[in-house]
Amino acid sequence: RINGDRLWDMLMDMAKIGPGIAGGNNRQTLTDADAEGRSLFKTWCDKAGMTVGVDRMGTMFATRAGTDPNALPVYVGSHLDTQPTGGKYDGVLGVLAALEVVRTMNDLGIKTKHPIVVTNWANEEGARFAPAMLASGVFAGMHTLDYAYGRKDPEGKTYGDELKRIGWLGDEEVGARKMHAYFEYHIEQGPILEAENKTIGVVTHCQGLWWLEFTLTGKEAHTGSTPMAMRVNAGLAMSRIVEMVQSVAMENQPGAVAGVGQAFFSPNSRNVLPGKVVFTVDLRTPDKEKLDRMRAKIETEGKKIAEALGVGCSVEAIGHFEPVTFDPKLVTSVRNAAEKLGYSHMNIISGAGHDACWAAKVAPATMVMCPCVGGLSHNEAEEISKEWAAAGADVLFHAVVETAEI
Amino acid sequence: RINGDRLWDMLMDMAKIGPGIAGGNNRQTLTDADAEGRSLFKTWCDKAGMTVGVDRMGTMFATRAGTDPNALPVYVGSHLDTQPTGGKYDGVLGVLAALEVVRTMNDLGIKTKHPIVVTNWANEEGARFAPAMLASGVFAGMHTLDYAYGRKDPEGKTYGDELKRIGWLGDEEVGARKMHAYFEYHIEQGPILEAENKTIGVVTHCQGLWWLEFTLTGKEAHTGSTPMAMRVNAGLAMSRIVEMVQSVAMENQPGAVAGVGQAFFSPNSRNVLPGKVVFTVDLRTPDKEKLDRMRAKIETEGKKIAEALGVGCSVEAIGHFEPVTFDPKLVTSVRNAAEKLGYSHMNIISGAGHDACWAAKVAPATMVMCPCVGGLSHNEAEEISKEWAAAGADVLFHAVVETAEI
Ligand SMILES: NC(=O)NCCC(=O)O
Ligand SMILES: NC(=O)NCCC(=O)O
Repeated sequence: RINGDRLWDMLMDMAKIGPGIAGGNNRQTLTDADAEGRSLFKTWCDKAGMTVGVDRMGTMFATRAGTDPNALPVYVGSHLDTQPTGGKYDGVLGVLAALEVVRTMNDLGIKTKHPIVVTNWANEEGARFAPAMLASGVFAGMHTLDYAYGRKDPEGKTYGDELKRIGWLGDEEVGARKMHAYFEYHIEQGPILEAENKTIGVVTHCQGLWWLEFTLTGKEAHTGSTPMAMRVNAGLAMSRIVEMVQSVAMENQPGAVAGVGQAFFSPNSRNVLPGKVVFTVDLRTPDKEKLDRMRAKIETEGKKIAEALGVGCSVEAIGHFEPVTFDPKLVTSVRNAAEKLGYSHMNIISGAGHDACWAAKVAPATMVMCPCVGGLSHNEAEEISKEWAAAGADVLFHAVVETAEI
Repeated sequence: RINGDRLWDMLMDMAKIGPGIAGGNNRQTLTDADAEGRSLFKTWCDKAGMTVGVDRMGTMFATRAGTDPNALPVYVGSHLDTQPTGGKYDGVLGVLAALEVVRTMNDLGIKTKHPIVVTNWANEEGARFAPAMLASGVFAGMHTLDYAYGRKDPEGKTYGDELKRIGWLGDEEVGARKMHAYFEYHIEQGPILEAENKTIGVVTHCQGLWWLEFTLTGKEAHTGSTPMAMRVNAGLAMSRIVEMVQSVAMENQPGAVAGVGQAFFSPNSRNVLPGKVVFTVDLRTPDKEKLDRMRAKIETEGKKIAEALGVGCSVEAIGHFEPVTFDPKLVTSVRNAAEKLGYSHMNIISGAGHDACWAAKVAPATMVMCPCVGGLSHNEAEEISKEWAAAGADVLFHAVVETAEI
């Protein structure tokens, strides 16, 4: 078994970097806090005897050598970046549990045929730079490096410039590494495991996603002296589209979600009807056909709603991944580990996207999940117990050791 | 008649300060651009032989002496601050036409019994610091100086600090000045004069206003892994409230408007359901009872909508003025001037709020209006003709001279 106290201490130490405003974290991608978190992680990897490489997207790879010089490594990781008001475990648990797996191997003198590479993927959250899982996406050949470097934060700063600025631009070609397998341990971020009273989620699939960025063009005009009949109100159009998105999600129950998390009014002045509103719809379901049907409906209906108000409407897909089926052999090894260790478990479909989804494009991949309190994530109040954290890390340890072969 | 070319040249010179992004202006209250605009205005006032005083709200008063030392001054003014994406004429026309009135008096050697005070009220727009017409509101005793100093811009900077920072904190007690009369010349900012093909609006009333700031509290949660049934979605609540506000306005036709110009999602991340949404409803009508009825309905229904979604809702009135009836004698003097000068004219109710609304609380007050192209204002594309600008300034000149008594 891994050392649950040591894992928890690492989690709490990392949480001191980029503190939030309500007990969580704001350690967004390529900020100074991100750089500080990376340094701390590197220190720990160095101490554990690993060699740290960094690629041109800023992803960190800490290698524990294997016994067979020809064996491809088993990658185990997640991400250290957070939402602007994020929790202490989302992503961080997966990276530090992977490190704890290596520390436990060191303690027990376990040598594996395949090297182990503890991985901290860059820009998983997609909060500062859309889309989410950007670095793993480039790694898997889903995006070009140029595309990634050009992604902009809301202030207009690019990924490429910020990566250089914080000093974590590496020299490894992105995606050059080949993987024997990829494992990711993550909190569920949803309510199922807790409700079903299970300690371990054996992740068989991940639902697919579309992020649709709507740009609505109305006519800036005075809120007081512009008669109702003359208004070309982009904010009203957005409101109707948000309601329509909600309806499309409800029509597609069970097994679908959709909502709007981000919206910008322009010029955003109390007495000016918004001339421009930009917002992003996030829609997901594990069923590929349903996913594309929902996307088409939201786009078509959204344009109709805008048109009826005389509002211009363009829609850009700024994030997408298809539903993923994880590798059956690795899934079985996770289930067997949970069974052997005596942890209650169930199969689960990941509601959130993860770097494992892109890794699955280039290697056998799977995930392990533990519950989180009230299913709450992307919230500073995100919480898990030390026991849950340790249980998943135990399962990860056994599955990784089995796959890396003693 | 006033000098239309000279007036136009002043308008174009002022428009060079704080240029916008689409031909208009961004000279928001207490910014560096505002300070620069004030300096240019002061230079012009000095050249016209006037003495400039500044009060503790930063309002500028440029005095042309009268012949009777005991006669109270006639105040003529408006504002030089703009919206973030404002036009070149909203407010500016009123201040510079008042200056042109004085310059014309100088040219013609006209001496009046009552002094003339050309006035540049601070923070009329209310874009950076709510509410609108803040300095004239303090002048009229509607707000305390402390309240005004504590108003915050979206970055949290206060009115008091910013006024000091730009160097335009004056020493005059706010509201100490007594007025014989107050005149304000403004573009209509609506479509009526142009549609009716009239050059001059004789402003008899101004409609009343409420600004209601809604703060909606939902639950930040992951957009992917949070089931629809578990969502406490503040953005969805806002959307329903925006739609309801639209309905309330439509139910109260004719003679009422309502809409939402400003909204902030928090944390404003694509994959986080908004935990907090703050937005402002702007509602107006010339009928006091209707105004308060609409306000009550929007507040009550808004709270119900939020409650049905489990979303917390608090509503703060951050701006208010009652419908105003302007001084019949001054209104008549404006109408007579238009008649005498041969300009087509009609009575009109101001759709926008103006410093004249607060001045009317402490002195006889009225306004003159000219058309604007397409009724468009609070838009960088705001446009008027040089002829319209001059016509209103002519009417202002005659009404002011009559009231200030030769
Ligand atoms: N796990 C996680 O929150 N990833 C962010 C990408 C997503 O929105 O699913
Ligand atoms: N005239 C003008 O646009 N004033 C700003 C205050 C208002 O919203 O009416």
